Amino acid sequence: MTVAARGLPARVRIHEVGARDGLQNEKTAVPTSVKAEFVHRLADAGLSTIEATSFVHPKWVPQLADAEQLFPLVAGLPVALPVLVPNERGLDRALALGARRVAVFASATESFAKANLNRTVDEALAMFEPVVARAKAADVHVRGYLSMCFGDPWEGAVPLPQVVRVCRALLAMGCDELSLGDTIGVATPGHVTALLSALGSQGVPVDALGVHFHDTYGQALANTLAALQHGVTTVDASAGGLGGCPYARSATGNLATEDLVWMLQGLGIDTGVDLGRLTATSVWMADRLGRPSPSRTVRALSHKDPQEQ
Amino acid sequence: MTVAARGLPARVRIHEVGARDGLQNEKTAVPTSVKAEFVHRLADAGLSTIEATSFVHPKWVPQLADAEQLFPLVAGLPVALPVLVPNERGLDRALALGARRVAVFASATESFAKANLNRTVDEALAMFEPVVARAKAADVHVRGYLSMCFGDPWEGAVPLPQVVRVCRALLAMGCDELSLGDTIGVATPGHVTALLSALGSQGVPVDALGVHFHDTYGQALANTLAALQHGVTTVDASAGGLGGCPYARSATGNLATEDLVWMLQGLGIDTGVDLGRLTATSVWMADRLGRPSPSRTVRALSHKDPQEQ
Repeated sequence: MTVAARGLPARVRIHEVGARDGLQNEKTAVPTSVKAEFVHRLADAGLSTIEATSFVHPKWVPQLADAEQLFPLVAGLPVALPVLVPNERGLDRALALGARRVAVFASATESFAKANLNRTVDEALAMFEPVVARAKAADVHVRGYLSMCFGDPWEGAVPLPQVVRVCRALLAMGCDELSLGDTIGVATPGHVTALLSALGSQGVPVDALGVHFHDTYGQALANTLAALQHGVTTVDASAGGLGGCPYARSATGNLATEDLVWMLQGLGIDTGVDLGRLTATSVWMADRLGRPSPSRTVRALSHKDPQEQ
Repeated sequence: MTVAARGLPARVRIHEVGARDGLQNEKTAVPTSVKAEFVHRLADAGLSTIEATSFVHPKWVPQLADAEQLFPLVAGLPVALPVLVPNERGLDRALALGARRVAVFASATESFAKANLNRTVDEALAMFEPVVARAKAADVHVRGYLSMCFGDPWEGAVPLPQVVRVCRALLAMGCDELSLGDTIGVATPGHVTALLSALGSQGVPVDALGVHFHDTYGQALANTLAALQHGVTTVDASAGGLGGCPYARSATGNLATEDLVWMLQGLGIDTGVDLGRLTATSVWMADRLGRPSPSRTVRALSHKDPQEQ
């Protein structure tokens, strides 16, 4: 039953991360042609923002070493195709291929900044500053990812002012939007509301904020509901629940796009996504990866009982 | 981070169904002694309401055919121990063992009443009437389960007035509390709010209502959050996510108690449950059943990374 949702947005933009955040954490080598077909199928399923790949050095993310080969195979699609750029060298590679949207990847905690970028938080911000400036000068849209906004495997709960400070720094340097990441999946809805309130009270507009939840403790959709109730309209999700966090083996994947779409459809919130096509895409990709999708909705819809229509 | 939850209850009573609803859907034969230890461990973990077993005819639920042997092994525990009674014969058996809480199992839809009870909805209500009357005469607490409150595998979305009618009938015959079941797990938060609002507008007090969500489409915790926001303080859950619905193969288990407790702890809502002990219990039971727990929180907490505390 679709129930029009009072106090919730009429439309949510899903930022699909399966092809980048999902596949970069998969052990199975995926041929470039399969990645391209994945992105095409996601676009065909109605996703309007599909993060395509990453221009990080192949030494760090060998799974996405084919970014130069992949991007031209998908660049003609009529969807937004952001790509991750870790630094100016990555930006150069992305701009050379005609990318119109890029994303940088910052951390709210010193521990993860050190582990992921081998820098302090401020050193990482300093590294991103010319990346963002040059992207904006080229009229390229910039997303700023912020990891460990809620909990950190080394530091525990992350103080709100610490997250607010980095968010404001990313916006001040020119990021068009931010993605607040619960990288290890420990957040609960009250914490989400508290962070969004803290950001709002410090002048960060909710329109500039997306949320990126992991389902490690099963909290991703409840957290998403809390974020929607707070006015957030951009939600990151990964088709079929692909991906995870390489720094926390227990961290199961991103919120599955299908589980998100099931909830949003039920709430009468428009996403533009065809759930049947999307599920078929995730089943197809699961076959390529040789293991079933962790998405509960994918499993339910692809194992229909005979009496269920 | 624990964030005090504005507009949410200070305390939630978890109605633990793993030993009954969970084990009745498991194919592995579980010895009575293991079931008894399971209930003891659940009580030791701080659960205050533990549905212990079912006095349905062994022909229908052979997994719980040992109810007469099991109940005396747990009856001394200082917790509420409801048992399922399908009819007067079942009530006789439960009362003979000294049960102080029973539960009947009604359906909101004709299709499921037919499939599960081989009766119409009204015939089933008529069957429960003397059960409830005799239980109340013996000062025994009665819970009324109501299946298929949101969607039905044969009928699709279930109209709200149909659910309201059966709820009111169960309360009118003397049930102390109801458990609103999303048996096939299709509900989304707006539907939950709509049903609770419809019940409230028809004079059903929210204090008499519990919710029973399945995670088939990953929606159980988001639906729980919506129910808490509406004032519900009784939530059914199954330790480790044990169980499912035998009439829908795709229907994965009940909401896992651990996933629920993780959210409630984060929201600063008291449950009395020790999550570490509960997780250890579910890991122990998963070993007995020979397969891993489907609970994401159980998996996360029992596969801690070395650097995580």
